[in-house]
Amino acid sequence: MADWLETLDRLAHERAKAGLTRQLRPRAAGDTVIDLAGNDYLGLSGHPRVVGAARQALEAYGLGATGSRLVRGTTDLHTALEETLAGWLGCESALVFSSGYLANLAVVRALSAVCDLVVSDAYNHASLIDGCRISGLPVRVAPHNDPAAVAALLDAHPGRAAVVTESVFSVDGDLAPLAALHAVTSARGALLIVDDAHALGLLGESGAGGVAAAGLTGAPDVIVTATLSKSLGGAGGVVAGPGPLVRHLVDTGRSFIYDTAPPPAVAAGVLAAVEVARAADDRRAVLFRRGAHLAATLRSAGRPVHDPAAGVLSVPAPGPEAAVAWAADCRDSGVAVGCFRPPSTPDGSSRLRLTVNAGVPEEAFARALTVILECAP
Amino acid sequence: MADWLETLDRLAHERAKAGLTRQLRPRAAGDTVIDLAGNDYLGLSGHPRVVGAARQALEAYGLGATGSRLVRGTTDLHTALEETLAGWLGCESALVFSSGYLANLAVVRALSAVCDLVVSDAYNHASLIDGCRISGLPVRVAPHNDPAAVAALLDAHPGRAAVVTESVFSVDGDLAPLAALHAVTSARGALLIVDDAHALGLLGESGAGGVAAAGLTGAPDVIVTATLSKSLGGAGGVVAGPGPLVRHLVDTGRSFIYDTAPPPAVAAGVLAAVEVARAADDRRAVLFRRGAHLAATLRSAGRPVHDPAAGVLSVPAPGPEAAVAWAADCRDSGVAVGCFRPPSTPDGSSRLRLTVNAGVPEEAFARALTVILECAP
Repeated sequence: MADWLETLDRLAHERAKAGLTRQLRPRAAGDTVIDLAGNDYLGLSGHPRVVGAARQALEAYGLGATGSRLVRGTTDLHTALEETLAGWLGCESALVFSSGYLANLAVVRALSAVCDLVVSDAYNHASLIDGCRISGLPVRVAPHNDPAAVAALLDAHPGRAAVVTESVFSVDGDLAPLAALHAVTSARGALLIVDDAHALGLLGESGAGGVAAAGLTGAPDVIVTATLSKSLGGAGGVVAGPGPLVRHLVDTGRSFIYDTAPPPAVAAGVLAAVEVARAADDRRAVLFRRGAHLAATLRSAGRPVHDPAAGVLSVPAPGPEAAVAWAADCRDSGVAVGCFRPPSTPDGSSRLRLTVNAGVPEEAFARALTVILECAP
Repeated sequence: MADWLETLDRLAHERAKAGLTRQLRPRAAGDTVIDLAGNDYLGLSGHPRVVGAARQALEAYGLGATGSRLVRGTTDLHTALEETLAGWLGCESALVFSSGYLANLAVVRALSAVCDLVVSDAYNHASLIDGCRISGLPVRVAPHNDPAAVAALLDAHPGRAAVVTESVFSVDGDLAPLAALHAVTSARGALLIVDDAHALGLLGESGAGGVAAAGLTGAPDVIVTATLSKSLGGAGGVVAGPGPLVRHLVDTGRSFIYDTAPPPAVAAGVLAAVEVARAADDRRAVLFRRGAHLAATLRSAGRPVHDPAAGVLSVPAPGPEAAVAWAADCRDSGVAVGCFRPPSTPDGSSRLRLTVNAGVPEEAFARALTVILECAP
């Protein structure tokens, strides 16, 4: 074996010893595992209207978009989706990407045209961190959810900064103090970028997201990003904000220009999902009731958890091996839960990550809760 | 208007004055424009087997993958696709990403574990350039398609380097001297990363790509990336190479771990497309015949073009406005062509980018050629 492969093998053995090996576990169609791991919060990935709209577009346009958005990849479905998302989010304009990761890379880099510093929450998602890195801007990491610390960083900086945060954090499910952050940024002429991936469809009037729930809809110095793959049950990402920002992304955004457009069928399915999600107060009610019940039950069993801000609940585990064993035991009992270990956890601890999916039948959800407690270390 | 928006507006005006504004032009279902712009080289995006497989998976799994590959996103379709791609490309292992952009980001970064320099062809795609940047490795840019220059850069470097190139370059459609490059890299213990996006399905035995055509199939120091959105008519990307590299990507690849998996329907459609593409010598024959005819006709009309190495042919234009006007006139006559201007062109020149699509009917292709010549500046 070549020595570089031996090096990779050695690194793999070191990860294995530290309990950090990751396994791809394929699921089959009709998989009967109860899903408390995925991000299909409203159960829309299999909704008849979503699947039906995607199927129609598949027949009408074929599978792939066949080119980048600027060459052949934009269909009327992409445009309709962007207009609908902008309207839902209360932004002037919206731009769809083939992945939320690529949307986040693009938005931070775009702001390097008008900012000279980026302040990033310590618990931000990998895509935001990579966006900061690739922007070329100097980066200051702010302590998690700490508007005063952000204010101090901004006060120490003479130019314009962009402050980057998630609304609902992807691993722990806690909520950023968006209104307080915005008070800090707007008073100092800074921009606020909010990744609303885990709040879109769940928080705010008509599920318009965490920015809406914080009363910041339409604020001219707030830029929203989100994925279309979580509560909307599809794939892709979006950046929403003022028209000139979207114009700038169309003309200069490398991860927009040089990437194949998302499939028309995905755009159509997500467009249908937005329509369903806007009217899905019933599904949101189920989700919040279940989340509160899940947290209360875990606390009764001596597990120190917070009520989820949206659909994510994080349960500490003693270590990476214990977390893996807990998740494996749940899986063996027919329940899928997330198992997050370093480097996926911002604080270096290991935990189960439970998600609430309003599409799971009531009795299955109750059964999952029993299994999780029975398998606990 | 806020001053940062005024700055973005001013930048937009400057781009407009330089002829560098980009327009999103949505197409409708049943669009009758003749496509010499997209990358659907074999016409598979609408192939009945591709659409049928995608539709079946859509019904069986729903639209979205509902989670990252490591959490809930991997289905048996993703696994089957990866095994099939590895077999086709003659690699030990393959890993599918939701975008070729994300695959390229991941592979260059992964090699930072075993390399301490990356040598990048001057004309490489934006995703490879961003991969180099985000890898944290020192980057040396080599003159385009110049193995001797690569050798000199490697000789000047004591450690292990990764050399990154496309096989068929995306803008000009020219072919990298892969065998010569590999002779240079293998003699010096360097790794060779080849982005085969524009050759997969077109070059090599059974369309296995540019690496296969260069006789490098299975070379242990060659790593292949590709998109699934071009000749395969779908979406997504792939990294193929030795098992320990894929293992490393699964455990540590940020743009793999922290991204929602591609939709099962996309995986199913691409899997069917691979099966069609492997047997599509007839479509490849049409494509090469058309490419040679296109080049010969343009040369007869006084346009200095090379025979395309695969499906991309680049035609110089006098400047960005002339290129835009040429493409617009073609579009008005029912023919879609690519119009590439800085910063999308590696040498700062502007040009039409024509692609050959074997799925376009013969008479439509002939008509497109007439239109392109009639509209020429």
